[in-house]
Amino acid sequence: MKNSIGTSVVLTLAGESHGPGIVAILDGMAPGIHVDESFIADQLARRRPCGATETARREPDDFSILSGVNEGFTTGAPIAIFIPNTDVRSADYAALEHLVRPSHADYPARIKYKGFEDQRGGGHFSGRITAGIVAAGAIAISALKAKDIRIGTHILSCAGVEDEPFGPEPAAQIDRLDGSDFPVLGNVADAMTERILAARADGDSVGGVIQTAIDGLPAGVGEPWFGSVEGVIANAMLSIGGIKGIEFGSGFALAGMRGSQANDPWEMPGDGNPRTITNHNGGVNGGISNGMPVVFNCVVKPTPSISIPQHTIDLRTGRNTTLQINGRHDPAIVRRVCIVATSITAIAVCDLLALHFGTDYINQHDFWLDR
Amino acid sequence: MKNSIGTSVVLTLAGESHGPGIVAILDGMAPGIHVDESFIADQLARRRPCGATETARREPDDFSILSGVNEGFTTGAPIAIFIPNTDVRSADYAALEHLVRPSHADYPARIKYKGFEDQRGGGHFSGRITAGIVAAGAIAISALKAKDIRIGTHILSCAGVEDEPFGPEPAAQIDRLDGSDFPVLGNVADAMTERILAARADGDSVGGVIQTAIDGLPAGVGEPWFGSVEGVIANAMLSIGGIKGIEFGSGFALAGMRGSQANDPWEMPGDGNPRTITNHNGGVNGGISNGMPVVFNCVVKPTPSISIPQHTIDLRTGRNTTLQINGRHDPAIVRRVCIVATSITAIAVCDLLALHFGTDYINQHDFWLDR
Amino acid sequence: MKNSIGTSVVLTLAGESHGPGIVAILDGMAPGIHVDESFIADQLARRRPCGATETARREPDDFSILSGVNEGFTTGAPIAIFIPNTDVRSADYAALEHLVRPSHADYPARIKYKGFEDQRGGGHFSGRITAGIVAAGAIAISALKAKDIRIGTHILSCAGVEDEPFGPEPAAQIDRLDGSDFPVLGNVADAMTERILAARADGDSVGGVIQTAIDGLPAGVGEPWFGSVEGVIANAMLSIGGIKGIEFGSGFALAGMRGSQANDPWEMPGDGNPRTITNHNGGVNGGISNGMPVVFNCVVKPTPSISIPQHTIDLRTGRNTTLQINGRHDPAIVRRVCIVATSITAIAVCDLLALHFGTDYINQHDFWLDR
Amino acid sequence: MKNSIGTSVVLTLAGESHGPGIVAILDGMAPGIHVDESFIADQLARRRPCGATETARREPDDFSILSGVNEGFTTGAPIAIFIPNTDVRSADYAALEHLVRPSHADYPARIKYKGFEDQRGGGHFSGRITAGIVAAGAIAISALKAKDIRIGTHILSCAGVEDEPFGPEPAAQIDRLDGSDFPVLGNVADAMTERILAARADGDSVGGVIQTAIDGLPAGVGEPWFGSVEGVIANAMLSIGGIKGIEFGSGFALAGMRGSQANDPWEMPGDGNPRTITNHNGGVNGGISNGMPVVFNCVVKPTPSISIPQHTIDLRTGRNTTLQINGRHDPAIVRRVCIVATSITAIAVCDLLALHFGTDYINQHDFWLDR
Repeated sequence: MKNSIGTSVVLTLAGESHGPGIVAILDGMAPGIHVDESFIADQLARRRPCGATETARREPDDFSILSGVNEGFTTGAPIAIFIPNTDVRSADYAALEHLVRPSHADYPARIKYKGFEDQRGGGHFSGRITAGIVAAGAIAISALKAKDIRIGTHILSCAGVEDEPFGPEPAAQIDRLDGSDFPVLGNVADAMTERILAARADGDSVGGVIQTAIDGLPAGVGEPWFGSVEGVIANAMLSIGGIKGIEFGSGFALAGMRGSQANDPWEMPGDGNPRTITNHNGGVNGGISNGMPVVFNCVVKPTPSISIPQHTIDLRTGRNTTLQINGRHDPAIVRRVCIVATSITAIAVCDLLALHFGTDYINQHDFWLDR
Repeated sequence: MKNSIGTSVVLTLAGESHGPGIVAILDGMAPGIHVDESFIADQLARRRPCGATETARREPDDFSILSGVNEGFTTGAPIAIFIPNTDVRSADYAALEHLVRPSHADYPARIKYKGFEDQRGGGHFSGRITAGIVAAGAIAISALKAKDIRIGTHILSCAGVEDEPFGPEPAAQIDRLDGSDFPVLGNVADAMTERILAARADGDSVGGVIQTAIDGLPAGVGEPWFGSVEGVIANAMLSIGGIKGIEFGSGFALAGMRGSQANDPWEMPGDGNPRTITNHNGGVNGGISNGMPVVFNCVVKPTPSISIPQHTIDLRTGRNTTLQINGRHDPAIVRRVCIVATSITAIAVCDLLALHFGTDYINQHDFWLDR
Repeated sequence: MKNSIGTSVVLTLAGESHGPGIVAILDGMAPGIHVDESFIADQLARRRPCGATETARREPDDFSILSGVNEGFTTGAPIAIFIPNTDVRSADYAALEHLVRPSHADYPARIKYKGFEDQRGGGHFSGRITAGIVAAGAIAISALKAKDIRIGTHILSCAGVEDEPFGPEPAAQIDRLDGSDFPVLGNVADAMTERILAARADGDSVGGVIQTAIDGLPAGVGEPWFGSVEGVIANAMLSIGGIKGIEFGSGFALAGMRGSQANDPWEMPGDGNPRTITNHNGGVNGGISNGMPVVFNCVVKPTPSISIPQHTIDLRTGRNTTLQINGRHDPAIVRRVCIVATSITAIAVCDLLALHFGTDYINQHDFWLDR
Repeated sequence: MKNSIGTSVVLTLAGESHGPGIVAILDGMAPGIHVDESFIADQLARRRPCGATETARREPDDFSILSGVNEGFTTGAPIAIFIPNTDVRSADYAALEHLVRPSHADYPARIKYKGFEDQRGGGHFSGRITAGIVAAGAIAISALKAKDIRIGTHILSCAGVEDEPFGPEPAAQIDRLDGSDFPVLGNVADAMTERILAARADGDSVGGVIQTAIDGLPAGVGEPWFGSVEGVIANAMLSIGGIKGIEFGSGFALAGMRGSQANDPWEMPGDGNPRTITNHNGGVNGGISNGMPVVFNCVVKPTPSISIPQHTIDLRTGRNTTLQINGRHDPAIVRRVCIVATSITAIAVCDLLALHFGTDYINQHDFWLDR
């Protein structure tokens, strides 16, 4: 299983930037989940580059559901989604074929695939492939929402501008993000945009940190060691190009705390559902969900495609040289990565739930004859 | 596969803190790897609590190899290792049975396992289980070293004291760590120890950050999306209790950089092996190893067992109460986690290599008749 | 992993009989394998119904490679193939919606999928899905042939007519099957066809036994217990609808032999490659290939769709009733299953080889710059 | 995953015939399953050689549960069982070290493991390893029985003597087998024993066919293609040394039937639970259980260890030679394989159920506080 992730609910991805399109197969979803194609389209639109801060490349993101959905409901069979590529201009890239782009996959791909890799537009390494994650994730997000499990991601920081973090009860904040084109909780969109534009003006790029919250995940999901909630989610998030780190709860700040500060004391509120007073552990203890919101941050590195000249090598000649990349590039992918993070997290959560509660948990829909 | 990790090289763990002992099965290793039992014993000793800063509980860590090794060499069959428990004093824990220890697995385990979980000494959640990782990892570490692949972990920070990070060519630093009881690169052991002792004097605990380097990993290992080097290693590391975050290369600091700072330019040195001038990406591009050292940091939360009274609930009465933990506890596990991190990383690296190069890659030993 | 099979080389299938089409993703194949689209088309044509004995339904089997192939070579990225459905006439089936067809999946599917399953034309259970296996398998067959590993399947018996079995050195027989429309080794095609037509004239159907040989598989592949060559191939073959049993070598006839008859004595011929004098074990000892041809038989049940009236139940009324199936149906699928069996076997063999020898074994193609 | 089988419920095996013992780890079982150690001991005793027909080697089969069970109940953590070896006489085997025993794993093991394999007593290939399957399976059998799912295996034929097959409602027959030392349904034990003794008198061995029935498996378990009930069980059964074929329901006899004979018509009896009038499909349609008993036969080849001289090669000299095996050997393993077949089937069924219904399905035990 190289291009698949999951155990009971499994996502398989295929496709290249300049090939016919992207294929995602989402397998193991319960039957009877309502599939809203307009929600999938909305999610794909949110992944698209848009506005002043991003590349002008148009990605209309048509898509077709090729299997696994009938009369608007999942059938229980694997769901295949195809997202055709359009507006592909390979000529932009041809000249660079043997120049290794710094911090791209060019060099390791050449060693691994011996030059047979599709190099046009990043090939299978292109961020374009995340459209498959987003389309499949939309179905998972809907299914979870019907079970009152909500997932949302915002830009926690970008180019030095900080957003406010999720609060202790993030459900309303997550709902608010749903309608947003620039996913932030506070009033920081303009400041972030300004910094991104400044980087672009310099032919440069910026990175950031994104924060994801899962609200409503029942306690008891995940495994003590391998298969822990943290391991499963970290594996999913660090499969996404550009994400170089993840931290749960207070994360790296825990290194500077004492146990008496970092521990989350339990209390029994009036409703009889135990809860922790703080959530430094990000909703996971011993690898298992504890019923509190699962919160984690991921760092997104600056887009490696910059137009400033860079030192590199020519693989054909074996000589040092200088690379100048032209073409259309995002000065920041941090906004677009948010929807990808929410999507892959939703799929991972469906897998964790199905493994523990069974395939039908995420949709205990009544028998068809009753619908 | 809940308590197993890996695809071609697989580690399976079993055991509880106060049961008969810990079992680790390491499967998929090549035949013909020399197994040095004294090295396994040394590694287990390094995982033991020792000295002034840690719990006084004695763990002699005898072990038996139950299968998969014959006449000092791996046979290619699964390697089972048993590490018996000794010096178990369950009485220390009995009184707490229904009080939820903050930031331990008590509450989620109760929900998941319905009270059937073994609660004595943390049961299957105990750090004791990591002895299985260390014993199995010792075989992986040896096998890799014979292929000039070195892995080492040091305490990058603890209780506010910072060690120096790995340099661009960490092989010698890794070798130096091998002989060390307190794995740091700089002259910071005393300062760290002092802070740990101060926490213990207060009945409190501290956390830290550990840094791991893999030197000599060939370029071309790992997959573009799922199965990326970062995803595989993150999954392994975040399976270890107490680790709450991971970052590769410059990690979260990348969020504050521009692309022109974060990108690692390539150069062709005299030896004809392409290398990057910097290593902000931690040896991985597009999910695949690029031939540079793979470097990552993990945050270790403060030990949750503290003797300061804590607010919590009693699961039998459903009431709020106060918990005071006595008994023997580490004020810091950060030193002991280093050897666990190196061990699980070595197993993950063996898996990545076996998947790409085949089972025999890590030991192209000649045929038996020639040995 | 529900609709995926394999560990290092993985096939994932999706699609329904009356949906847009079939999707197959073949992942883990080495880069640099030449992909001959006309060979894929030929293989798909051989899976099509044809001639007097089979359904008149037209299946032109156009296909598109959506990813993983560039300039005629595999890239190492996952290969997605789409085979659109055409000539779909759902009306034939609508009337039967609540009548359980005997020996079809109707009843268990209704329980499992709660009525949300796509029932048109068998939905995801349709033999139509095997087109995905055949298209993906064509790439595996080509890759293996370039390594002198040949796989072929013929009809060993059908409706009481027996073909001659594979001989001790089946390579030439396999090559002969490649060009055949009705895959038999002896002069039995007419007799089999006659019996099939007789069954059709009665509104009935027939089954048979198919025999597969793998020639050239190197010794040493497979695992002693789980992951044995027999277990891996049996899992693959019994995943195909209509196949109800498998036997390796002399199979069920071994039950009537003594050890002295069943054992395969070894000899050292002049070429220095040990071989067995007989091959009752079908090329596998202790789960591992022994260098002899791997030979196995699979039983194919009679097509369950017959036009003779059958006793059954109506799921809507819960009453007993009689079912009469009209429409286009094969009186025998045994011919068409041969190519499916060869295809899935080729994929399983690629997986076994990749796991042991590494990803690149099946194509040690030189670096791209040299092609 | 080489020496592991399963997805949600996973069995991992380790051990060699003449090493310290056998280790089995059964992971993914629900918490709260009562573990009866005397039942495990009984099952292990039934796997032992005994009586006139089998080897005189004593195997007392002590065992220890090393983890995953507390106060007589499963905890939900992985269950490790150790079965120490005793009465090991390696000298019997030493002389044969370089002579390839026909139809044993000697030659392929030598190629795969390069001579590092443990050759004493068959090493990891020894039937001794099945003790681990039986011990772990005993827990699965108990858990299923508490859910009214019964599994039993009898000798359907041995050395030409035929037992009567399972009837349409096998529950009572399965219960009857539970108490039997020689698992047959009819009065054929003496005739079979006589034939086995006759083979032994000739220094030869015999094979047979075993038949397994699963009664009470709910409809709707298993997957349409990969992960089918047949594929999962076939994989499990063909992982056992000596089993060379499997057939479900009427199996290979289906090849000679017409559809009108082979199809299983449905009827609605008074109790409102649909059932088929015949069961030629062995309880599985389209890969999914249909609520009828799952019935399958497996062929067991004659024990390859015979004392009649055999033609073979000497791997050290590369020359042809003659092999005469002395020592203690079973003239028939068909009796002992029955309990192994039941055990591995029970584990596979637990996995199928857990994947569909969730981890807790096989034991919906009340919360601990209520026990």
